[in-house]
Amino acid sequence: MSMHGGGRALNNVITTKIARDLYLVRTIDRQTKYFEGMWEIPEGVTYNSYVLTTSSGAVVFDTVKPLFTDLYLDAISKITDFKDIKYIVVHHVEPDHSGVVKQLAEKTGSPVLGHPLADKMLKRFYQYTGKFQSISDLYELSTGEYTIGFIHTPWLHWPETMMSYIKELNALLTCDAFGSYGSYAQIYYDELDGNERGRYRWLMLKYFANIIGFYRHWVSKNIEKLISVGIEPAYILPSHGLAARDKSVKEFVNLYLKWSLGEVEESKIIVLYTSMYGFVKKAVNALIEKLQSLGLRVVVYGFNDIERSPISEVIADVYDSKYVVIATSAYDADAFPIAKLLAELLSRKTPLSGKRVIVLAAHGWGPRAGSVIKGILELYGFKELSVIEFAAGEHEKIVESVLKAL
Amino acid sequence: MSMHGGGRALNNVITTKIARDLYLVRTIDRQTKYFEGMWEIPEGVTYNSYVLTTSSGAVVFDTVKPLFTDLYLDAISKITDFKDIKYIVVHHVEPDHSGVVKQLAEKTGSPVLGHPLADKMLKRFYQYTGKFQSISDLYELSTGEYTIGFIHTPWLHWPETMMSYIKELNALLTCDAFGSYGSYAQIYYDELDGNERGRYRWLMLKYFANIIGFYRHWVSKNIEKLISVGIEPAYILPSHGLAARDKSVKEFVNLYLKWSLGEVEESKIIVLYTSMYGFVKKAVNALIEKLQSLGLRVVVYGFNDIERSPISEVIADVYDSKYVVIATSAYDADAFPIAKLLAELLSRKTPLSGKRVIVLAAHGWGPRAGSVIKGILELYGFKELSVIEFAAGEHEKIVESVLKAL
Repeated sequence: MSMHGGGRALNNVITTKIARDLYLVRTIDRQTKYFEGMWEIPEGVTYNSYVLTTSSGAVVFDTVKPLFTDLYLDAISKITDFKDIKYIVVHHVEPDHSGVVKQLAEKTGSPVLGHPLADKMLKRFYQYTGKFQSISDLYELSTGEYTIGFIHTPWLHWPETMMSYIKELNALLTCDAFGSYGSYAQIYYDELDGNERGRYRWLMLKYFANIIGFYRHWVSKNIEKLISVGIEPAYILPSHGLAARDKSVKEFVNLYLKWSLGEVEESKIIVLYTSMYGFVKKAVNALIEKLQSLGLRVVVYGFNDIERSPISEVIADVYDSKYVVIATSAYDADAFPIAKLLAELLSRKTPLSGKRVIVLAAHGWGPRAGSVIKGILELYGFKELSVIEFAAGEHEKIVESVLKAL
Repeated sequence: MSMHGGGRALNNVITTKIARDLYLVRTIDRQTKYFEGMWEIPEGVTYNSYVLTTSSGAVVFDTVKPLFTDLYLDAISKITDFKDIKYIVVHHVEPDHSGVVKQLAEKTGSPVLGHPLADKMLKRFYQYTGKFQSISDLYELSTGEYTIGFIHTPWLHWPETMMSYIKELNALLTCDAFGSYGSYAQIYYDELDGNERGRYRWLMLKYFANIIGFYRHWVSKNIEKLISVGIEPAYILPSHGLAARDKSVKEFVNLYLKWSLGEVEESKIIVLYTSMYGFVKKAVNALIEKLQSLGLRVVVYGFNDIERSPISEVIADVYDSKYVVIATSAYDADAFPIAKLLAELLSRKTPLSGKRVIVLAAHGWGPRAGSVIKGILELYGFKELSVIEFAAGEHEKIVESVLKAL
């Protein structure tokens, strides 16, 4: 049963077996409102830790956000005795995964394995002074009946990020890559029905755009690297959200390649607007009606006197749109502050270069917002936009002008 | 009874007599969440319209936000017959005051009086094509037993802003200047007790910083102008919030002069922080403890995974602080987005040049946020800041470094 659409569940840990000897420990977080302190996540988020039990001890891959230390350690203790944990693998030192590494290392006495850069980060973040084993790219670790290969996957989405491949299970542990928001109780993407899958892919895109968007060019590079070293996983096991198996492995990889390359949905147009007193909103409403009549899929996000859309979702929906309209107004001899913030975040997080971008700028006495927004996009190298200025209240010609610019 | 501290009242209109023949029509708005589509106002806001009844007809000064058209017209009709309204004065075309001008003009057939620039704005905003009388600076209108002087007060806070002075009542109608947020049922500031006055002055500052902050240099210029033309009001009647009379007139004027000149509270320090995973928050907490022990008044605003402070209040509290600490972290080879937004808004809205500003910047693997925030402040001409970079988790020396930089 999916929980993302319904009421808020309590924080919770789900433990399940993925394949022989490989366990998932998923902590469900409905407490965090802003992921990374920034991105609105009413749907919640999960942190997946994995445990491989072998004849010569267990390997734990990643942990959880510090907030959930006790819940998490309790769940781990039900899979294996702490004293039987032989290695703790840190794919990524961001605290939503490394948050309990120090405590776990102290309880078990086992070494932490990570990218060479992870050592210093763990020392700084947590004053961790226990054993650390630096893992070089493509290093292989044999433990009991399993061989684990480690692959450096830089900038997905920090410099120290790496993945683990458990050869005998064909299981690729990808950390943040292929992850998603949402508080699902299902384990695999293929357990969702058609509608739920569509929703899940959107949450995956939301996560991708928010967290990995700025590093999107590294996704295809790292996927090529995985292929070049012969990895053909039967399982993709990310550190947030649902796992992929069998046919859905390819689906996940294709989504990531598509997003990495900035492919767009040709008939999708996103209209972002800020409106102080309704003039921009009126102009936008007239435009939306026309765009819909042309058969375009129009997605609208407003920022006005009673409404503030989630920026996390704006970024997601811009990410794969062919057309982007940013409608705003002049403000204090500048553009409206939220429009500037959006212009900057979109420039950084989404592949604008494959899109048609139109800036609609209202003013009370003199044009200004259009050139400011244009300036921000140009700063990030995007020059192909159309700017349409209009006096607040006079929006009759807007629809026509936008249609010409599309 | 003040309502700002208690539960949300319904939208409401208060009508009262200010002095012989001069009435206040105050609409209370608890619906607008973001004033100007931007500023968080949990305390609500009011729109004050004034009606002067004379032996040769009534004069209406300003109206209300369009949302409240019916409530407002109903209240006006209880003071005067529409057919007896002789003039409608528009001090400012921003729609929270000009929203019902067109309807009122249509109902009464009376001309609209405003700054020469107001004509075009009314035409554009509302397609108003009725009578308009351009009012030149210092023009005097005699109607019945009253003389009304009009004073252009540009950039408080639009180019077309003006004030009216009813000579026989010594009443200065100041529109947005001297206004405030809050949903008060009292009419005058002097009806509040001591604590409530302190709270009200803070709401006045919040409004000032949010709305007029960018134009603060125009405040003292316009006050000088009012004095130079011999205006010594017994009443200050703003278009938002409470009125001043007698001794509180001087108090309001002095507050505005102080804010216009950027005077600060010498022992006040504001600490703004963004924290993704708690590292910045920990550093800030250690700092706050030390600052408080030094007898400073410390005001803290956080932006983290469960909390997002109202930016409207951040700007207000920065406005009159002597010291400002902006603590943030690196993010995507940049500074954290909210910190950039704050740095820009503070540069525009508050007088940083009279303050000590310290940027505390955390990073996971390489310094970045400090130079980005510094760059934003420098863009606005502020160069005197101290930047202290630290590795996330290593904040022992922060407190010492900040104290040195103060």
